[in-house]
Amino acid sequence: MGLRIVAGTASPLLASAIAKTLGSEPVPCELDRFPDGELRPVVGHLRGDDVYVIQPTGPPVSDHLVELLLLLDACRRGGAGRITAVLPYFGYARQDRRGRAGEAVGARVVADALAASGAQRLVVVDPHSAALEAMCGIPVEMLTAVPALAGALAPAMPGDAVVVAPDLGAVKLAEHYASLLQRPVAVVRKTRVTGATVRAEEIAGDVAGRPAVIVDDMISTGATIEAAAQVCLAHGGTPRIAVAATHGLLVAGAPGRLGRLPVRCLVTTDSLPQNHSPAMALQVESVAPLLADAIGRLYHDQPLAGLLART
Amino acid sequence: MGLRIVAGTASPLLASAIAKTLGSEPVPCELDRFPDGELRPVVGHLRGDDVYVIQPTGPPVSDHLVELLLLLDACRRGGAGRITAVLPYFGYARQDRRGRAGEAVGARVVADALAASGAQRLVVVDPHSAALEAMCGIPVEMLTAVPALAGALAPAMPGDAVVVAPDLGAVKLAEHYASLLQRPVAVVRKTRVTGATVRAEEIAGDVAGRPAVIVDDMISTGATIEAAAQVCLAHGGTPRIAVAATHGLLVAGAPGRLGRLPVRCLVTTDSLPQNHSPAMALQVESVAPLLADAIGRLYHDQPLAGLLART
Amino acid sequence: MGLRIVAGTASPLLASAIAKTLGSEPVPCELDRFPDGELRPVVGHLRGDDVYVIQPTGPPVSDHLVELLLLLDACRRGGAGRITAVLPYFGYARQDRRGRAGEAVGARVVADALAASGAQRLVVVDPHSAALEAMCGIPVEMLTAVPALAGALAPAMPGDAVVVAPDLGAVKLAEHYASLLQRPVAVVRKTRVTGATVRAEEIAGDVAGRPAVIVDDMISTGATIEAAAQVCLAHGGTPRIAVAATHGLLVAGAPGRLGRLPVRCLVTTDSLPQNHSPAMALQVESVAPLLADAIGRLYHDQPLAGLLART
Amino acid sequence: MGLRIVAGTASPLLASAIAKTLGSEPVPCELDRFPDGELRPVVGHLRGDDVYVIQPTGPPVSDHLVELLLLLDACRRGGAGRITAVLPYFGYARQDRRGRAGEAVGARVVADALAASGAQRLVVVDPHSAALEAMCGIPVEMLTAVPALAGALAPAMPGDAVVVAPDLGAVKLAEHYASLLQRPVAVVRKTRVTGATVRAEEIAGDVAGRPAVIVDDMISTGATIEAAAQVCLAHGGTPRIAVAATHGLLVAGAPGRLGRLPVRCLVTTDSLPQNHSPAMALQVESVAPLLADAIGRLYHDQPLAGLLART
Amino acid sequence: MGLRIVAGTASPLLASAIAKTLGSEPVPCELDRFPDGELRPVVGHLRGDDVYVIQPTGPPVSDHLVELLLLLDACRRGGAGRITAVLPYFGYARQDRRGRAGEAVGARVVADALAASGAQRLVVVDPHSAALEAMCGIPVEMLTAVPALAGALAPAMPGDAVVVAPDLGAVKLAEHYASLLQRPVAVVRKTRVTGATVRAEEIAGDVAGRPAVIVDDMISTGATIEAAAQVCLAHGGTPRIAVAATHGLLVAGAPGRLGRLPVRCLVTTDSLPQNHSPAMALQVESVAPLLADAIGRLYHDQPLAGLLART
Amino acid sequence: MGLRIVAGTASPLLASAIAKTLGSEPVPCELDRFPDGELRPVVGHLRGDDVYVIQPTGPPVSDHLVELLLLLDACRRGGAGRITAVLPYFGYARQDRRGRAGEAVGARVVADALAASGAQRLVVVDPHSAALEAMCGIPVEMLTAVPALAGALAPAMPGDAVVVAPDLGAVKLAEHYASLLQRPVAVVRKTRVTGATVRAEEIAGDVAGRPAVIVDDMISTGATIEAAAQVCLAHGGTPRIAVAATHGLLVAGAPGRLGRLPVRCLVTTDSLPQNHSPAMALQVESVAPLLADAIGRLYHDQPLAGLLART
Repeated sequence: MGLRIVAGTASPLLASAIAKTLGSEPVPCELDRFPDGELRPVVGHLRGDDVYVIQPTGPPVSDHLVELLLLLDACRRGGAGRITAVLPYFGYARQDRRGRAGEAVGARVVADALAASGAQRLVVVDPHSAALEAMCGIPVEMLTAVPALAGALAPAMPGDAVVVAPDLGAVKLAEHYASLLQRPVAVVRKTRVTGATVRAEEIAGDVAGRPAVIVDDMISTGATIEAAAQVCLAHGGTPRIAVAATHGLLVAGAPGRLGRLPVRCLVTTDSLPQNHSPAMALQVESVAPLLADAIGRLYHDQPLAGLLART
Repeated sequence: MGLRIVAGTASPLLASAIAKTLGSEPVPCELDRFPDGELRPVVGHLRGDDVYVIQPTGPPVSDHLVELLLLLDACRRGGAGRITAVLPYFGYARQDRRGRAGEAVGARVVADALAASGAQRLVVVDPHSAALEAMCGIPVEMLTAVPALAGALAPAMPGDAVVVAPDLGAVKLAEHYASLLQRPVAVVRKTRVTGATVRAEEIAGDVAGRPAVIVDDMISTGATIEAAAQVCLAHGGTPRIAVAATHGLLVAGAPGRLGRLPVRCLVTTDSLPQNHSPAMALQVESVAPLLADAIGRLYHDQPLAGLLART
Repeated sequence: MGLRIVAGTASPLLASAIAKTLGSEPVPCELDRFPDGELRPVVGHLRGDDVYVIQPTGPPVSDHLVELLLLLDACRRGGAGRITAVLPYFGYARQDRRGRAGEAVGARVVADALAASGAQRLVVVDPHSAALEAMCGIPVEMLTAVPALAGALAPAMPGDAVVVAPDLGAVKLAEHYASLLQRPVAVVRKTRVTGATVRAEEIAGDVAGRPAVIVDDMISTGATIEAAAQVCLAHGGTPRIAVAATHGLLVAGAPGRLGRLPVRCLVTTDSLPQNHSPAMALQVESVAPLLADAIGRLYHDQPLAGLLART
Repeated sequence: MGLRIVAGTASPLLASAIAKTLGSEPVPCELDRFPDGELRPVVGHLRGDDVYVIQPTGPPVSDHLVELLLLLDACRRGGAGRITAVLPYFGYARQDRRGRAGEAVGARVVADALAASGAQRLVVVDPHSAALEAMCGIPVEMLTAVPALAGALAPAMPGDAVVVAPDLGAVKLAEHYASLLQRPVAVVRKTRVTGATVRAEEIAGDVAGRPAVIVDDMISTGATIEAAAQVCLAHGGTPRIAVAATHGLLVAGAPGRLGRLPVRCLVTTDSLPQNHSPAMALQVESVAPLLADAIGRLYHDQPLAGLLART
Repeated sequence: MGLRIVAGTASPLLASAIAKTLGSEPVPCELDRFPDGELRPVVGHLRGDDVYVIQPTGPPVSDHLVELLLLLDACRRGGAGRITAVLPYFGYARQDRRGRAGEAVGARVVADALAASGAQRLVVVDPHSAALEAMCGIPVEMLTAVPALAGALAPAMPGDAVVVAPDLGAVKLAEHYASLLQRPVAVVRKTRVTGATVRAEEIAGDVAGRPAVIVDDMISTGATIEAAAQVCLAHGGTPRIAVAATHGLLVAGAPGRLGRLPVRCLVTTDSLPQNHSPAMALQVESVAPLLADAIGRLYHDQPLAGLLART
Repeated sequence: MGLRIVAGTASPLLASAIAKTLGSEPVPCELDRFPDGELRPVVGHLRGDDVYVIQPTGPPVSDHLVELLLLLDACRRGGAGRITAVLPYFGYARQDRRGRAGEAVGARVVADALAASGAQRLVVVDPHSAALEAMCGIPVEMLTAVPALAGALAPAMPGDAVVVAPDLGAVKLAEHYASLLQRPVAVVRKTRVTGATVRAEEIAGDVAGRPAVIVDDMISTGATIEAAAQVCLAHGGTPRIAVAATHGLLVAGAPGRLGRLPVRCLVTTDSLPQNHSPAMALQVESVAPLLADAIGRLYHDQPLAGLLART
């Protein structure tokens, strides 16, 4: 059973980098797109192989998700020996409950559709919901990019910096950063008003006179980071803020919003493709080594110790 | 168990028309769209009801499909008594087999995802593949808009017109039209070269000196119709062509392509929303009466005789 | 379809109270226990009925869980028209992820076993994991006892009290209490060392000179509450602490541990049976009205607005 | 994982030929038949093996199908490592839709029963419905015997022969023959009146003065071939007709019906056992090489390029 | 939801009798049989109804089973509100385990196929294996014809008769007869040599000078009864033997074999059609009242007390 | 794929013995037990391995069953290549039918929960119900300890001993013993009154003046054995009784009850842990060699001939 990488179109560069690290090339694939928008992926020969389909389900989310479902089915019908869906970014993870009556539980809908289409195992990186694996009937390996990101932050880290969780959901992550960077943690409590508007309230922990390192699993519009930064500054934090997040969605004016802040350093990964203008000053740490390491170990039936997210 | 109509965003006007015909209003729904493109539909109270979710999965196909999956899950978790997904146009129906090694079977992927998300029954109109119901584990009711379209064609139908099937897949449909219009059938045999390019070859049946009524289940780019029209003209057909198709996708320059033909009349339905410029001269027959009739009968446990497609 | 209450042996009093509130009596049931410990429940006639099986899965957890699985199967084979498992306390909810390699995801194992045994819907109260519904393929209604508990706390609530979340997982709950009681919130950050030992660290929010109202979803050994109380006192809180938690497991010396604290008031519910000595000074608010209200609405297909947990 | 052939009783000779070509012998099997007609197959040791169960589901269809279901279960419980059901002829493929209200979708019923009994993959030859794979949740490999049959026809093929599709459903197949034989295609349009009676109507393509090569996927009663032959003759075709069909069911007087036609050559395969009288003048090309080739490639994880049906 | 009886072809008279007892007529059905033996049932309108499909799966077993699977699918796709498969005789019940390595578990294969095809509940009469319901994921109601048969035996029952179980598997049944007839029980221990040959050995209980009433769930070839009769006679039993069995398969020379015995009375039911020559002296008690009673109670959600088999 | 033994806590000694026989050590496992009784097993690295989880589900049944479900899930999520649940004793096997209306079918509930939690195959020893495998959708290998127990009985077996089945359910087992020991069989017919009270009635076969060897699959309270012994003695059997049973539950006073009988020898296995006082005079034959042999053969894809129970 050979190890084969199948690259969806959501991040071909990442898939290539993973394959290269593993000493191979992605399975030749094509994606036909019909004039009416229907997708038709075609995967190369992979009968009997241990196949890893790389596809982050970032924007455009629906297209990337449907393409992934079709790819999984193509692998199954093509006779793959085992199929692992690798979602460096797992879209819809935030919809892990009904926030109010009448909603769907989108994370579960996605999990079920992946399994129904042929996925036998998932690999994800720093999912928004730590309970993600409980939503999936198939095994899920939850990797973390925090060590890589902390490693990128460390060299220029001032001695008096404080790791800041911009909301309660990020505290576990912040503690992971803090333990690696040997820094204290402060926590911002916010109230989310709408999808793009956040009202920050207060901060637990001492940030006065210190540079903040705001960390989160993902940056969507940047509003959460913006609010946290403002709280830090309002509480006397120094204006040399660093920001780290595994997933840089950076939509809806995020570059501009973050660009207006006194951010000296913004680190993210290529779990989603990063093609921003140089003005953005984004430092991108690749998750390709992490994913290649994990895939190699899974293929060789080795433990994932040291690669897994702390939950 | 009350009858409730849930309207997806793919065709709210059609859903409203169906609800109105049935003497009700659609269940209040909202569709939040997150800045990163994730969808979050919210459906109103429908606990215990017999729910019909109206959503054609035309372009943008992936968005409409994912929204439908979420809507179905929202209905299920909201306690719907029974859930019927109504797809006036069923996208991905053409992918009912692997055309070559390495492809997916998209129609089955969609069918499985719908069932996994909570659909207990499907209602479709003139699906591209007559075997669609065999691909679904849940019951499928396949309705037809042919009588409505034939009714629209009839008044201005010249006495010597001939119904033309633009390819072999449309012959059953053409025979249905022909029996209603009491006209003969001619068949064009084509070879599809690429998604948008069609090479027509020949025609079986007498079209010389006659006006053609070209019929098909759907018009995507219009290339198939264009080719059929050219064959008719090349075989001496008169240039007063009529065209009828249930599903007017009309993408990728279809209006222009069809506009250049000597088409006197182009009839389709609102299975997909039709918002074309007046220049298009499109006559739109609504499937709302058909769908309302079918839904009403399903709700009242009556037979669908007379509404079903001939397969 | 009549409404029928089936009472497991985990809390027959609660089940009786629910049935009484709904104006009925529980379905006659027996639980044989073989000499080797195998359980054999027998349920009365409930063919065609809308059945609600009441069984909190508190200690002894395994026995109560297995009994529930058998009860569900008995209802299914006995011809119940619809089966809702009502778990006022949902055991194993904390195991919603693998904390380290080699663990199971117990919450999902339980969810799958319930569905496999015949449950078509779950009703739970203040589950430990808000993502519980995403772990279940069947709909889950997550009710909350917070309004009832807040109502019990309110009369004797000092004007300067502060609601204290003993850890980050309880913040949402604390905010719910705070909004009902119109009090501020403070948050203790703890590190759990072992199952029974908790090392508290700090507190965010002003507790000096104020009486604390420590709230949580459940009290197991009481160690979390004890630690939070000590933090409050260490930060100058007054020694007139109140404690509220939906689920009073109160195992492993909890009464003694809590009895040593300056707790003026300890409020919980009967989601689990409460048979403690008078020395405990436990105030028990019944969830019977809440559950009876919810079951009645579900039976009558009405919305659950106002009864649902905030997640 | 060894390659093992299990032979059902529907075509032991074919199974032996396949096994021989693959250099092995079929797994020893027995089929007990109880006095009341219940079947009890017993398969030999195949634990851990890659098992291919050979069973065409031709007449008696029900017995062959039920035997196949039992064989699959016996293989599963006997510990087979992987189970592929090989149906050289797939019965019930014509029931891929409800022709009228109240029918079943027999093809799907069969597909589901096969999967429920343990089949993990299907191999079929020239199935009646090209959408067969979309009806199956498990992968289906659709092979074709057309090259073998075309090869048998070629030597004696007159230079002016025309390939004739006896109905629209056979056109794809006819085009496959035509491309291999480098001949034109003509198409008969028929209307099926009852199961055994066919009313032919017309022909598209030039058959006058030419010998017809009528091709189809299967010959049941021969009525379709008879009708097509009569149309060819009526349109001036020469009376030296050749007939080719993958599946020779030849029931209900087919030999007599075909014997009365001016057929110079009738070629079919042993996808179903052919034990007809010499008077029939049937030329049987074996599908054993095709199936052995496909099975060998599947076992060795090689592509099936060149063996697959064109759909 | 109306009560509707669907009659398979295995026993239309029984189905009619059931329907008549219930005051209705069977749903109009047809069974097309293609020239190659494929079956195509067509059921009448039953949308929303509570449907009971009557089909004993006696000889020809495979045909009756496949017809039943198709009928169930037809009912499901036709919109039946609830589908109960009524198998007055459940074929393959004896294959409830692998008697030796390499066999299938036929009873489970049948159970799974029934559920996969749409059955939501089974009703059977005196199944060969009392564990049948444990093999089915869907509820099974196991009725008994013993009271009816005992009632037929009673009038002519000599005062000194003894109920004889012809093998150990029939002891529970014999005890049921004995309690109704107030007679003692004797048990023959046999060793089955082949399907049709039985070597009887001994008898427990006093039969000397007494007329035996040999009872069993089914009579296939009659060999078991023959052997038991010979044991009774050899142990001094009087030659006025009575025989009762729920299911009269009576294959492979059973009438002759039983005709040679000193049997004064042979009672069975019409769970399978009984069309034997008058010479057979068979007394047939109809299970139509039993089945009609059970179906009526199931439809009206009443208990089945008194109709169920003792297991 | 390495062979790995996972030991549940129900019988760690047996698991160790099996592992030792196979030349390995059990996978390191821990079982955390929360203060409230929730279990949290942790299994060591077993990715890609062929895993056998050893856990008899004897008392406390619920705890052992729930622990097994969690262990299976832990193995599945830990990446086991194949998972076989080995239940030397399978609890709930007696509940293979509803004894009366309103009961569950516990054996099926257990079977479904095991499969839902990740078991792909079961191995059991002398299950109470021979139809156990028909209740499981996954393959079940039913081993027997009878040869080992017969071997232990043989040396001291008097020449005139008779094998006694204490009830009808044990006759097959008794015949297996009898064939190995070359002794005749006698059968006690009993009526079970309650779970612990048995009223014995009579005996078929000659026991007068002979020592009885009473055999059964399991001894729970010992009441069945006690009753059989009394019948033997009452019919003149000698007071030197031997008893053999695969599963020694020995609950509810069984040691005392059996100790009062003239039993010279009581043989059982360690399918359940045996920690009784020396006064019990219990001879324990280990099933470790049997299970190790079976597991070794399953791992090496060899037949189980000679190890399987006779059913």
